[in-house]
Amino acid sequence: MDQHNNPAAGTPAADTSAPERSYGRAANQMRPVKLTRDVMMNADGSCLAEFGNTRVMCTATVEEGVPAWRKGSRAGWVTAEYAMLPASTSTRTRREYKGRKGRSMEIERLVGRSLRAVCDMHRLGELTVTCDCDVIQADGGTRTASITGAWVALHDALQKWVDAGKIKRLPLTGQVAAISMGKVADRLLLDLDYPEDSHAQVDLNLVCTGDGGIVEVQGTGERSTISREELDALLDMGQTGIQELIRLQNQVTGFSD
Amino acid sequence: MDQHNNPAAGTPAADTSAPERSYGRAANQMRPVKLTRDVMMNADGSCLAEFGNTRVMCTATVEEGVPAWRKGSRAGWVTAEYAMLPASTSTRTRREYKGRKGRSMEIERLVGRSLRAVCDMHRLGELTVTCDCDVIQADGGTRTASITGAWVALHDALQKWVDAGKIKRLPLTGQVAAISMGKVADRLLLDLDYPEDSHAQVDLNLVCTGDGGIVEVQGTGERSTISREELDALLDMGQTGIQELIRLQNQVTGFSD
Amino acid sequence: MDQHNNPAAGTPAADTSAPERSYGRAANQMRPVKLTRDVMMNADGSCLAEFGNTRVMCTATVEEGVPAWRKGSRAGWVTAEYAMLPASTSTRTRREYKGRKGRSMEIERLVGRSLRAVCDMHRLGELTVTCDCDVIQADGGTRTASITGAWVALHDALQKWVDAGKIKRLPLTGQVAAISMGKVADRLLLDLDYPEDSHAQVDLNLVCTGDGGIVEVQGTGERSTISREELDALLDMGQTGIQELIRLQNQVTGFSD
Amino acid sequence: MDQHNNPAAGTPAADTSAPERSYGRAANQMRPVKLTRDVMMNADGSCLAEFGNTRVMCTATVEEGVPAWRKGSRAGWVTAEYAMLPASTSTRTRREYKGRKGRSMEIERLVGRSLRAVCDMHRLGELTVTCDCDVIQADGGTRTASITGAWVALHDALQKWVDAGKIKRLPLTGQVAAISMGKVADRLLLDLDYPEDSHAQVDLNLVCTGDGGIVEVQGTGERSTISREELDALLDMGQTGIQELIRLQNQVTGFSD
Amino acid sequence: MDQHNNPAAGTPAADTSAPERSYGRAANQMRPVKLTRDVMMNADGSCLAEFGNTRVMCTATVEEGVPAWRKGSRAGWVTAEYAMLPASTSTRTRREYKGRKGRSMEIERLVGRSLRAVCDMHRLGELTVTCDCDVIQADGGTRTASITGAWVALHDALQKWVDAGKIKRLPLTGQVAAISMGKVADRLLLDLDYPEDSHAQVDLNLVCTGDGGIVEVQGTGERSTISREELDALLDMGQTGIQELIRLQNQVTGFSD
Amino acid sequence: MDQHNNPAAGTPAADTSAPERSYGRAANQMRPVKLTRDVMMNADGSCLAEFGNTRVMCTATVEEGVPAWRKGSRAGWVTAEYAMLPASTSTRTRREYKGRKGRSMEIERLVGRSLRAVCDMHRLGELTVTCDCDVIQADGGTRTASITGAWVALHDALQKWVDAGKIKRLPLTGQVAAISMGKVADRLLLDLDYPEDSHAQVDLNLVCTGDGGIVEVQGTGERSTISREELDALLDMGQTGIQELIRLQNQVTGFSD
Repeated sequence: MDQHNNPAAGTPAADTSAPERSYGRAANQMRPVKLTRDVMMNADGSCLAEFGNTRVMCTATVEEGVPAWRKGSRAGWVTAEYAMLPASTSTRTRREYKGRKGRSMEIERLVGRSLRAVCDMHRLGELTVTCDCDVIQADGGTRTASITGAWVALHDALQKWVDAGKIKRLPLTGQVAAISMGKVADRLLLDLDYPEDSHAQVDLNLVCTGDGGIVEVQGTGERSTISREELDALLDMGQTGIQELIRLQNQVTGFSD
Repeated sequence: MDQHNNPAAGTPAADTSAPERSYGRAANQMRPVKLTRDVMMNADGSCLAEFGNTRVMCTATVEEGVPAWRKGSRAGWVTAEYAMLPASTSTRTRREYKGRKGRSMEIERLVGRSLRAVCDMHRLGELTVTCDCDVIQADGGTRTASITGAWVALHDALQKWVDAGKIKRLPLTGQVAAISMGKVADRLLLDLDYPEDSHAQVDLNLVCTGDGGIVEVQGTGERSTISREELDALLDMGQTGIQELIRLQNQVTGFSD
Repeated sequence: MDQHNNPAAGTPAADTSAPERSYGRAANQMRPVKLTRDVMMNADGSCLAEFGNTRVMCTATVEEGVPAWRKGSRAGWVTAEYAMLPASTSTRTRREYKGRKGRSMEIERLVGRSLRAVCDMHRLGELTVTCDCDVIQADGGTRTASITGAWVALHDALQKWVDAGKIKRLPLTGQVAAISMGKVADRLLLDLDYPEDSHAQVDLNLVCTGDGGIVEVQGTGERSTISREELDALLDMGQTGIQELIRLQNQVTGFSD
Repeated sequence: MDQHNNPAAGTPAADTSAPERSYGRAANQMRPVKLTRDVMMNADGSCLAEFGNTRVMCTATVEEGVPAWRKGSRAGWVTAEYAMLPASTSTRTRREYKGRKGRSMEIERLVGRSLRAVCDMHRLGELTVTCDCDVIQADGGTRTASITGAWVALHDALQKWVDAGKIKRLPLTGQVAAISMGKVADRLLLDLDYPEDSHAQVDLNLVCTGDGGIVEVQGTGERSTISREELDALLDMGQTGIQELIRLQNQVTGFSD
Repeated sequence: MDQHNNPAAGTPAADTSAPERSYGRAANQMRPVKLTRDVMMNADGSCLAEFGNTRVMCTATVEEGVPAWRKGSRAGWVTAEYAMLPASTSTRTRREYKGRKGRSMEIERLVGRSLRAVCDMHRLGELTVTCDCDVIQADGGTRTASITGAWVALHDALQKWVDAGKIKRLPLTGQVAAISMGKVADRLLLDLDYPEDSHAQVDLNLVCTGDGGIVEVQGTGERSTISREELDALLDMGQTGIQELIRLQNQVTGFSD
Repeated sequence: MDQHNNPAAGTPAADTSAPERSYGRAANQMRPVKLTRDVMMNADGSCLAEFGNTRVMCTATVEEGVPAWRKGSRAGWVTAEYAMLPASTSTRTRREYKGRKGRSMEIERLVGRSLRAVCDMHRLGELTVTCDCDVIQADGGTRTASITGAWVALHDALQKWVDAGKIKRLPLTGQVAAISMGKVADRLLLDLDYPEDSHAQVDLNLVCTGDGGIVEVQGTGERSTISREELDALLDMGQTGIQELIRLQNQVTGFSD
């Protein structure tokens, strides 16, 4: 079991008038990020992704076969599921036994698409990988922590099947990681924690590959809109943050294209 | 019942090497758009939104009361539902009786958020407006047609309640409209139809208000990623297209802030 | 796209004491009926059935294969689905996501049985035809409009498959159409609209084939009962009305046994 | 506990060429019918209705209050539920845990409407009576046995509440009973048993009140249609049969309007 | 159809200070038990199990095939379903259409395990037996009556398939029966009826085979706990009671290992 | 955050012929047990319960109000939910979105009853405590670890509300803990791990209070039965084991009656 601390929280924010951010962060700084591998005895790959107090257990399970609509294609499938422990949130969250919530389905579709963007389905062959992202503790940014951690779990699961001789060559074409940004009290911030997120005027999530390609961008303003200039500034901030996460994944897994 | 044709399909595309677009459009041209009001006898407001062959029946129904979690807030609520007629698609689509599809929930959440961005909930008071977007025929861009048409239906429903003296002042703070863009066969295109959408490398949806503020941006690359430069070019194209839709809404409803 | 108006609304009602019916109809007159074909780009067959303000979009989709319980029988299957757009009714109708309503299931079973009564399943072969009846606007008589329109959509879908050489011979043994009757304020009336239907003491639906055979009769008195003589009078009225609908279907499709 | 045998099976059928009916019945004869009261210790009223081998346990339970949509109306409600024991049928029937079947919902709506036709809701007051019809053994005609037996259970439950002083005056305005008819191998028959029902070309159910008023008529021809003359003959047969059931209910309960 | 009365209610209870038990029973006496076979025309085996006023209809249906997870195992499967008629209880019980109740699923799992404990799945071969336990009337001890009666129904169904030559040798390795015990008002009692059960401090169910082996023991104290000595005394009482039930099953079916 | 190791794994097993148990345990020894408190930032009380490799996250959340059926009783309610992370098991476990599993419902009912046995509902007042038991990793004994850990979480949550002055006096009347036993390869063993559990002939779970009272006993033999003597021996073993768990809870929480 290996842990890596990112050095992001180094330089404290100079802007003294604004409300202080957690960990004394500058507007463009992420929380301390930890990616801890091999935390689950039974999964093929696992990674506990921590962004500050946000903790997501990401696991990857490889199974023979593919969904019915993909049978005979000689190509595999990667899918994701996302759920929160009821006590992960400040107000207890209900389990989704009586109908899924739109939010959860949106997130698991996002995680699945992000991972598929860097996976060569033909190299994978007719196997299905399910990446479970279970939020143990929620403090903002659970979807981006899910993507960042799920890639590590996916990598490890695929490597295990390569090592076992069941897949010829690692079917990953690259890395993928994600970070959130937002406009809070008219400031543009990177990696919102829950108190920031719950007051955000605009909320943006960015998913990029290791070579800087944009996989997903999702920005939402319910309380306010955002100008094109602000959008551009947030995207700059996010792209820089993701480079750091990509480096951290690299360090943890030793992956190279 | 009044119909307005947008003049967008005017200048044919010059680029002769690329596969021709429907209506002989240039890369940055939308399909002919029609917004037809008052098409439903029973709804408070209704608008049939047509983007080329895509036809979405948008209706708005105002009801007394608000959801339980909002009671006593003196503020109203605007929500949306989205569904497709089974025969709206080339392959028949199943009705969602046994569990909602993630895609539908994602779209109705998007439509709801977009409309709420231009609605003053306190002026509305403890009323709920449900905007139903039922896709009669699908040929790409159903979610952006839904938003664009639903705003018209919402406007008309609220105006009707204002006229009836049940709301004091029109609770709209502006207009909202949406358009899709994408990268197809390495070309950047505005307003994808279904054949284009089904081959898109990257798919982007943009929602803006009448004053150019960005409400939502959602870009997804499942088959490919996109560079920051390409994203910027698509956003430029989308912002221009939305201005046209805003003008068309204006023309149809006579709305002014 | 061809439209036909039935001449039914010709002679106005003489009975001046009774409340006037819509379109100035006599007790035994139907509303203007329109059957408009080819209104959906993607369906195999489609027909917008209008009985006055009641508008039902009827489509027929042919798919390879049959339900599991019918496999290997060399016989096909025809089934129907019925739903209302939420804004089709004066009070918004909820979508049936959390359990189907008995009424909807009753109607779709009725439509399916009616269509199967004139379809030769062995000539059809192991194909399934799904007839979707989506009520766009409801003003009474949606189930009878569904049956009358769905037969046209079914005819066109089957003819298309015959033309494509996938079915040898049109598997229709005849036509089928339906009309409602009722006792309202002690008068016996044909083709009730919604205000009449909502005050009906007794409500009767009749489904007949082109040669006058009775396929279904469903009469219900929740507020009152009906004598045998009244039932007989209503049936007479209904049989005459259906002959007119059969002629209209004929005119539209050119069908002959 | 009192049981009454109807004398219906008296005169054997003369038509020797046709396949013999169960109990050696003529075409217009019912099976032996038994209505046994007070068979359930806990229900307010109960009646085991037997039509030959068909056995339906009918119970009526009175509860304070009415459904939400009826609150404050000073009127009561009568509703019905219908289910089959899995082993009641020759092939085991699945329990409806994962979605109700259209057939069951159709039947319970029919039973409810039939009972409400003879119940004065204002005399009942804000009480709800639930009539459960549980098919113990199915041999054709379960819905008509349900209606006939449920009236007895309803009568007894209401009488019990009258006796307890909780209802002032018995809220029944009359009796209601039902019988099935059909066309089988081109013969018109009364009270089909399962082997007849499963080969019926046309199947008709009739519900009448004690004074001969028609409450419901439901006729269905999936394998064949029926002429108007045949329909008339079946209705004659059914009306006579129901008179007999009304007499039997009378004998059992001592009810008089 | 044969019925057997057990002689258990012979000696009345001497303890005059304690509240009298139904049927004047001593603390260690069961209610009169009746096991009536062949009560259902359509099931392969059936038994109406009566413990005093508790009446459970137990049926066994044999079907070709096994659940998917057991295919190819050459071994069969025995499963159980448990439900209550709504009017079986003093307060009407709702049907479980909108989600199963934990209690019902617990009981049907218990009944299934108990029956499987005496069934040789390889002798059975790839057949599935479903034992339906439908509570007609509930007066305490429905789960133990279900097990005791279901064994008789299972025996008869299997014997019928043996007689038909479809199973070579009766796949039963023994008998199984069950009884309840409890601590009520500080007295240790056998076979609680509903009034006792609803006041029980501790409730215990015991399932044993014909040779005295314990298949299941389930003891629950919600209102109180129980000492080890009391548990031992209740188990003694239960084991004696089950021997009596085993004798009764034997008498009814003539089964011998 | 405090952790306590129980010294149970001290003396290795002498029986050399039997297959060695994990941690070199004797037949009557438990795995190392850890109860780690305060592991969740948002819950009122939390405890990670580890029995060897089995890890269950137990949390307790107190909310104002009680279920509808308990309103106005001046008494509170304690309930439990149980779920497994999909990757907690060697074969991935499906989430229970489409219908709960009987097993899960059985376990959460058991946990709830066990906790209620030591909680004074009147002292609690009209509050509801939900104890979530989420299995992070499963290696046998998850239900007994859930009970043992949930009591600690419940204690801490209640103490927190006492400290905040919202509950007058700690509403716990004692402690409750649980352990599993079984017969595996004809040996009687305490605290089965997954490999043992999956081969167990008989499986027994025992729940006791701090003063030795038995709250629940659940023994199941699907592959075999058990004699009364064996049952007695297992109960002895279990009672001793539970005493140890009670001591550990005590040590961790400092609770005294």
